[in-house]
Amino acid sequence: MNHVFNFSAGPAMLPQPVLEQAQREMLNWQGTGMSVMEMSHRGAEFMSIAAQAEADLRDIMGIPPNYKVLFLQGGASSQFAMIPMNLLRGKRTADYVETGDWSSKAIHEANKYCNANVVTSTKASSYTRIPAFTSWNRNPHAAYLHYTPNETIRGVEFPFVPETGDVPLVADMSSSILSRPVNISQFGLIYAGAQKNIGPAGLVVVIVRDDLLDNSVSGTPSLYDYQILADNQSMYNTPPTYAWYLSGLVFQWIKQQGGVASLAATNARKAQKLYATIDASHGFYQNPVEPPYRSRMSVPFMLADKHHENLFLAEALESGLANLQGHRFLGGMRASIYNAMPEAGVDALVDFMQDFMPRYG
Amino acid sequence: MNHVFNFSAGPAMLPQPVLEQAQREMLNWQGTGMSVMEMSHRGAEFMSIAAQAEADLRDIMGIPPNYKVLFLQGGASSQFAMIPMNLLRGKRTADYVETGDWSSKAIHEANKYCNANVVTSTKASSYTRIPAFTSWNRNPHAAYLHYTPNETIRGVEFPFVPETGDVPLVADMSSSILSRPVNISQFGLIYAGAQKNIGPAGLVVVIVRDDLLDNSVSGTPSLYDYQILADNQSMYNTPPTYAWYLSGLVFQWIKQQGGVASLAATNARKAQKLYATIDASHGFYQNPVEPPYRSRMSVPFMLADKHHENLFLAEALESGLANLQGHRFLGGMRASIYNAMPEAGVDALVDFMQDFMPRYG
Repeated sequence: MNHVFNFSAGPAMLPQPVLEQAQREMLNWQGTGMSVMEMSHRGAEFMSIAAQAEADLRDIMGIPPNYKVLFLQGGASSQFAMIPMNLLRGKRTADYVETGDWSSKAIHEANKYCNANVVTSTKASSYTRIPAFTSWNRNPHAAYLHYTPNETIRGVEFPFVPETGDVPLVADMSSSILSRPVNISQFGLIYAGAQKNIGPAGLVVVIVRDDLLDNSVSGTPSLYDYQILADNQSMYNTPPTYAWYLSGLVFQWIKQQGGVASLAATNARKAQKLYATIDASHGFYQNPVEPPYRSRMSVPFMLADKHHENLFLAEALESGLANLQGHRFLGGMRASIYNAMPEAGVDALVDFMQDFMPRYG
Repeated sequence: MNHVFNFSAGPAMLPQPVLEQAQREMLNWQGTGMSVMEMSHRGAEFMSIAAQAEADLRDIMGIPPNYKVLFLQGGASSQFAMIPMNLLRGKRTADYVETGDWSSKAIHEANKYCNANVVTSTKASSYTRIPAFTSWNRNPHAAYLHYTPNETIRGVEFPFVPETGDVPLVADMSSSILSRPVNISQFGLIYAGAQKNIGPAGLVVVIVRDDLLDNSVSGTPSLYDYQILADNQSMYNTPPTYAWYLSGLVFQWIKQQGGVASLAATNARKAQKLYATIDASHGFYQNPVEPPYRSRMSVPFMLADKHHENLFLAEALESGLANLQGHRFLGGMRASIYNAMPEAGVDALVDFMQDFMPRYG
């Protein structure tokens, strides 16, 4: 099979030009006679790769100089513990917004270190909307407020950024980073597992405001201490060099696409095409999320007749549309349409959905 | 420049056939139309890659069934904290052997969680030997004993395995794993950062005896809890899939080389050639480590006249011998000669050293 349209939720599709460049450079990066994988992380070659990746990310996201950018191991889930271990600053409580399975996991982990005050939860209604900010029960003593702008499993996305004033805003942007412009200054800390919109699995990018760095609690492992990691430019120990390099190639690809604003426009069109197909299917395809909160990155859908789901997945795969099965918590189907999914992939999926429907409707 | 002989201490040289296979499969693994990087870690394709890698590692190391094998993020340095967080089992002290800079770092981190009892230290004599086991001041209440079989920076290696009886033996094998046969049953826990003898950076392999798993202290992050990681087959969160895949290719390459015993014989010859060249140089090249404790993996050496070191490194690089500079703590030169360094690379280095000496001696 030729290169397929891969709708996996993560690890996810990467831009084909990035993979082709990585393939060309696999045994010999820029005439060094070495793979990037074989380079000392402290050598001039890798240091230049690392610095260029950070500079490009700062450029495409507009990251101000008073924010550090860290390239770490551990995945976004590591941040579920690192955030309370570093950001409580003597306080005992932090605000958490529960809008899906990922924010729920963050809350579970945070409760090891503080009282995670759930300001609002849509768990009882199966995570199909985002409650208005004015309705949240915030704790005036909260050290920070944590939320998940996009929830991949149910496909719910915030249409607004919470305005928390002096309380640092912390966002798990694993599935939304680089998909639309954000104003970094509204945030205290942003983190994102790489394997959706950045690069391969095994890397988490953390963007953290300087004043939040030096506050770890006693007993924090060195590799969970933002200050130690920042002091060592993410090289307190050997970083995940190949993932860092590939992420840098993705950042360059984003620049070539016209930057994040240009991708955001394409992403909006891609999502709109899928939701329009679902909504015009007279219930053959179903998505329960209230329209203002539907995700532009993660589009779950069910068939009215669940008995046809395996057939849908099998026929889709035969048509070069891979990994459309829903999350194991939920079943059904899900199309993850991150930056690297071309609009042509969504068009092919829409065509397939419209072809499948009359045959089994 | 064609593919060079790369003496980097880590990330280090990888077997060329492994890089060539990774290059071929970069955009399309076994007809799936996907890169391994793009695969869901829970999909059948990656699950088969992961299982095969573990089976091959168990085979080549002879790992008994009562040991779990974990493929984790964080590097070996993460284990410096994870080990006391999981293995103290209510005790307050653990024994540590200080034979170099890496064991010293492990001790520093362990002291956050317990009293790290240094049973012996060669720090005062610049880490040039391994004190006899019978001279160690072990604490009878120690939860475990931690040591570093090979120290990369000074090039010191244990010629014996400590026999600690009922006290679990913990070994940082980052730079020695797979370089010679070991009897796993002598150990409670073995860990190794991948970027020397296993695969690319961003992965640490942990081999841990079942009875040591379920003992984490309160406040341990989920990703630092061996039991949680083992219960989830190293997929509590998204694992470093590409590093795992490449490690699997290295394990298959090791089998093709005749296994660890065969590599051990080659490694012994490689090291012997280098030390013989140093010792026959009448002090032009110097290595201060007492012969019984010289490393087979990490061969540091100095020039009697330090003014010629930069010239040595520059001429070596022109001859296709890269990354021979010593560790930044120590200066001088260092040849890391892990499994992936062919004997021809050591022969080329020896030829170069013998050519350089009369011109500057």
